[in-house]
Amino acid sequence: MQPSETAQRVAVAHVWPEIEGGRFPIKRIIGDVVTVDADVFADGHDAIACALRFRHQRERRWNETPMALLSNDRRRGAFVVDQLGRYHYTIVAWPDPFATWLSDFAKWLNAGNDIRMQLAIAAELVNAAAARARGADRTTLRAAAARLGAADDGAVAQARDPDLQSLVARYADRSTATAYDRELEVIVDRERARCAAWYELFPRSTAPTPGRHGTFADMERRLPYVAELGFDVVYFPPIHPIGVTNRKGKNNAPFAGPGDPGSPWAIGAGSCGHDAIHPDLGTLDDFAHLLAAARALDLEVALDLAFQCSPDHPYVRDHPEWFRRRSDGAIQFAENPPKKYEDIYPLDFTTISAPALWEELRRVVEFWIGQGVRIFRVDNPHTKPFTFWQWLLTEIGRAHPDVIFLSEAFTRPNIMYRLAALGFSQSYTYFAWRNTRAELTDYFTELTQTSLREYFRPNLWPNTPDILTAYLVDGGRSAFVIRFVLAATLGASYGIYGPAFELCEATPLAAGKEEYLNSEKFEIRHWDLDRPESLREIITRVNTIRRTNPALQADVGLRFHPTDNENLLVYSKSTPDAGNVVLVAVNLDPLWVQSGWTDLSLSALGLDPARPIEAHDLLTDTRHRWRGPRNFVQLDPAVMPAHIFRLTQAPEAR
Amino acid sequence: MQPSETAQRVAVAHVWPEIEGGRFPIKRIIGDVVTVDADVFADGHDAIACALRFRHQRERRWNETPMALLSNDRRRGAFVVDQLGRYHYTIVAWPDPFATWLSDFAKWLNAGNDIRMQLAIAAELVNAAAARARGADRTTLRAAAARLGAADDGAVAQARDPDLQSLVARYADRSTATAYDRELEVIVDRERARCAAWYELFPRSTAPTPGRHGTFADMERRLPYVAELGFDVVYFPPIHPIGVTNRKGKNNAPFAGPGDPGSPWAIGAGSCGHDAIHPDLGTLDDFAHLLAAARALDLEVALDLAFQCSPDHPYVRDHPEWFRRRSDGAIQFAENPPKKYEDIYPLDFTTISAPALWEELRRVVEFWIGQGVRIFRVDNPHTKPFTFWQWLLTEIGRAHPDVIFLSEAFTRPNIMYRLAALGFSQSYTYFAWRNTRAELTDYFTELTQTSLREYFRPNLWPNTPDILTAYLVDGGRSAFVIRFVLAATLGASYGIYGPAFELCEATPLAAGKEEYLNSEKFEIRHWDLDRPESLREIITRVNTIRRTNPALQADVGLRFHPTDNENLLVYSKSTPDAGNVVLVAVNLDPLWVQSGWTDLSLSALGLDPARPIEAHDLLTDTRHRWRGPRNFVQLDPAVMPAHIFRLTQAPEAR
Repeated sequence: MQPSETAQRVAVAHVWPEIEGGRFPIKRIIGDVVTVDADVFADGHDAIACALRFRHQRERRWNETPMALLSNDRRRGAFVVDQLGRYHYTIVAWPDPFATWLSDFAKWLNAGNDIRMQLAIAAELVNAAAARARGADRTTLRAAAARLGAADDGAVAQARDPDLQSLVARYADRSTATAYDRELEVIVDRERARCAAWYELFPRSTAPTPGRHGTFADMERRLPYVAELGFDVVYFPPIHPIGVTNRKGKNNAPFAGPGDPGSPWAIGAGSCGHDAIHPDLGTLDDFAHLLAAARALDLEVALDLAFQCSPDHPYVRDHPEWFRRRSDGAIQFAENPPKKYEDIYPLDFTTISAPALWEELRRVVEFWIGQGVRIFRVDNPHTKPFTFWQWLLTEIGRAHPDVIFLSEAFTRPNIMYRLAALGFSQSYTYFAWRNTRAELTDYFTELTQTSLREYFRPNLWPNTPDILTAYLVDGGRSAFVIRFVLAATLGASYGIYGPAFELCEATPLAAGKEEYLNSEKFEIRHWDLDRPESLREIITRVNTIRRTNPALQADVGLRFHPTDNENLLVYSKSTPDAGNVVLVAVNLDPLWVQSGWTDLSLSALGLDPARPIEAHDLLTDTRHRWRGPRNFVQLDPAVMPAHIFRLTQAPEAR
Repeated sequence: MQPSETAQRVAVAHVWPEIEGGRFPIKRIIGDVVTVDADVFADGHDAIACALRFRHQRERRWNETPMALLSNDRRRGAFVVDQLGRYHYTIVAWPDPFATWLSDFAKWLNAGNDIRMQLAIAAELVNAAAARARGADRTTLRAAAARLGAADDGAVAQARDPDLQSLVARYADRSTATAYDRELEVIVDRERARCAAWYELFPRSTAPTPGRHGTFADMERRLPYVAELGFDVVYFPPIHPIGVTNRKGKNNAPFAGPGDPGSPWAIGAGSCGHDAIHPDLGTLDDFAHLLAAARALDLEVALDLAFQCSPDHPYVRDHPEWFRRRSDGAIQFAENPPKKYEDIYPLDFTTISAPALWEELRRVVEFWIGQGVRIFRVDNPHTKPFTFWQWLLTEIGRAHPDVIFLSEAFTRPNIMYRLAALGFSQSYTYFAWRNTRAELTDYFTELTQTSLREYFRPNLWPNTPDILTAYLVDGGRSAFVIRFVLAATLGASYGIYGPAFELCEATPLAAGKEEYLNSEKFEIRHWDLDRPESLREIITRVNTIRRTNPALQADVGLRFHPTDNENLLVYSKSTPDAGNVVLVAVNLDPLWVQSGWTDLSLSALGLDPARPIEAHDLLTDTRHRWRGPRNFVQLDPAVMPAHIFRLTQAPEAR
């Protein structure tokens, strides 16, 4: 053993946040405060000094901020993340003999002991600090040590001078300091990674007349509609050329008819692949024009990263080594027995040639970043290796910390959560299939009250081009309203696939199937946006409520409140300072009126249960005056299946 | 990036047991099964093979055992620890393409697909395994591949042959295997580390006549008494020479009178220190004789390791560098403001000379091991650095894995638990101060239901020479019975300081103090073991019950049962196979009769609530026949404040 080993007396343990033993970063938004707790303790009864260290990945030197004692051994420190990218944080702690001395000194004084020897010890400690100090501080410390050494009344006053304490602390002996054995990380994203309303649509279905392939110019004309609905992000399925070999027909027919456009996810044709634009949509210039038009409307465009190829993709010809071959020499098309995707070849991420493939895919991402895209929805990331995503997201994040990646993984929880841990900014969830009060409460408690809240940012979709749930099929227009309000208020981020959603499209391919009939994946649709059943008005209203209520812009302030009717889900969201409190009540039954009593934890929401509460229903713009935690709720799905109240303390009536 | 990085597709996560991210070992007893769980998953839908690897610290090569799928991604494997010392364990996992193929194959068959291509793929996989095999296995695999390649009816049968599956698995391609990134440890102790009844006494108080200093020969004559009471370990406070400088008098008086023997914890006089025996007790030969006599009675002797010195210890003269000096040059005696221990100098474990001190203390431990001692109670380990204990316990454990260390740390939980994590075999607890039902339930739930159960082995002491609790002072003889039954049945390990305990000695130094009046720490006492209030009979009975009921020999099978009277504590202990079920009911009120109803979770105890239960009270040897979970308990502390039932399923009455 070495003397240095023998000298470290402080232990740093149970650091929080720390994901899976420090293997994965937590996530924050620029401007956030990162609060770090730890148990810090040593043998004996010595006082301990403790600092939280942090630095941006581009900084070399640690910044330090003290960690204050909460109770027993628990310490807390905090720092603000004011730059995008990754931060590192860790903890350092060391014995503080002067603080120990001060605490003992008070006890010796109380016990009426002779304190001359104690003051001599203090003088020694202060002189030792002086030896580590320079300039004026050294002079000050030397003088203080001399005053302590005098062991008179002035010495006692000197000992208790808080300025002396902080000066001695500044020149602490850190030679025996314990550095926590892990450096932890924070990924700092921009605000849109935490909160955004997404709208997915197929640009090819935006032509003004039926039967025509929509263009980026058509899509540009659709943007004001999306902006007026109040969305932040408009997301397009792949915009690349589509293969012709084994192209699928309408409703996933094995063979395409003459006019069938094929699935946009069967990417690549001729010499054009993932960095090209489908000629029927337009050119790169048109795309740039579209991006600018979106920007002018405060809309951001998200593209789809689907790392797979049609049999006609140039990679197939130029890089046959990137594909797995069968024993007969043919490339194996995608399959998930007994399903077959003959129009798609998966890439093989783990062959000896994988490094070149990985670099090429990074180039593709960089290409679109170069065009001005900063948000990507990633198709099926769970069918590519974790190591690939960890590498890609880290590399892109280093160069472009403003880029946001949404993980479209519908698979087992471990895999979904691991992808988030590896760096995906947001993740699709099981929301589409969580319908009952118990299901919703359990799932959102897991997402917002466990360690997942530190790194898994849910993005809630009531539908997607692949998902038309039985709840929507069976529940009619009210079901769409219910699922919309839930998505937009349970999740700081949510999305709909439209216009199918707002037009309440609800015909499945076949009974019991989750696929849409006449899915836009395989054909061009023309939508009448003015259909009377359109949810346009309520969508616009809820998105406005989201923008004006910061409580709805984060996931962590969620709290469920008990009701005596299990068809009623009641929850609140509040900002950390309780300055904004939103209470949502939803009738989960799309067919019948439901009513019941709810018990609100008012004081947990920062409201005084003894004083009246004003509940302003932001959906209907009606105001109610409540007294106490127990309130009656009745919701008729045929009228409006939800309340979204803003709660404030009302003035006492005179 | 390197190809090797790109190829690892399997993730191993959430391994259990794993203490604080793998920093600390778990503990087991020789012969135990170590069960290890983990989430093991990969991208895509490939099947995964997974093995638990383990090796004793003296072995170089890993042993492997497969980890079976529990549900979703959760795997479980197990191994038996059949040697003392440390084991390492970790996990390795790799994709299993043949298992994937088999699962897909079944689906293709069901879907009525042409399976010739599938069989060709299988032939390829089996041939690849053949290339990795040798001898007869290679021939077998080649033949199987040929049969698969034939793609006829025989090929389908061949594909499903379980022998082929295991042969292919034996020659799996592990080139892309993922090794879990931590190697975890198990400390394997002998049975006495898990379960023992300790009896502490001062050998100097065992002389047959009052006023004489007891000797090892006297102590040897006391051994049959201790053995008859049913104890396993007899523990002596320090047996070394005691200093004269600043020796304390009776009742901790600052100055000793002429005949005062001093505190045994003020170790060292003249040329004799921690490796010497107090001359009034006897010689090393006498000690060896005593050890042999104990062994003959199946009693094991535990010594006290108190790493501190009297001012007369030879270290003070020979190694002044091992002590901290004050500014006036004097060595600082021990203090805990405002308390002073002028008869004791603490050692300074963190000076530049610490390595030599550490080595010397190891020599002391080795010396007593050389004399035949295998159990040490360690005095105040929390006042010495964690790094010292980690080093000492690891070093001694490597050379003498049968040695047991009991940590006497009464301090904050983090520190007590950290000492256990560093390697102490057992630990003192807060048991002495946990009196109410809520206190006992909370504390023992924490100790036995959280991760603490993996490494913190409690040893419960109702009293020690330093601790005479208010509960014992105020409660009379019944209080002693209650605390004894609780200690001996809540804890697989417990101890009493006798004869003070069994003779119900309950006079404190002063009202409200926890110190004994006329404490044996400062004077020699003569005890009349035949006093009528002696707990001899009940102690003997309870220790017999412990020996014949394996459920009481472990801590993990503890379960609390609700009662409607908070003065009644009802708990059960059962073996993992539910072959032995012990139910304990204790009246926590030493003064009054208490009664109430209890609800037993019978099915959790492996008992059928629908059939009659025989409850055999092992304390009173009475038998009761119960039906159903709800039972009435009434306990009169003046008669017997506890039941210890053995529960069995009774035959149905005819």
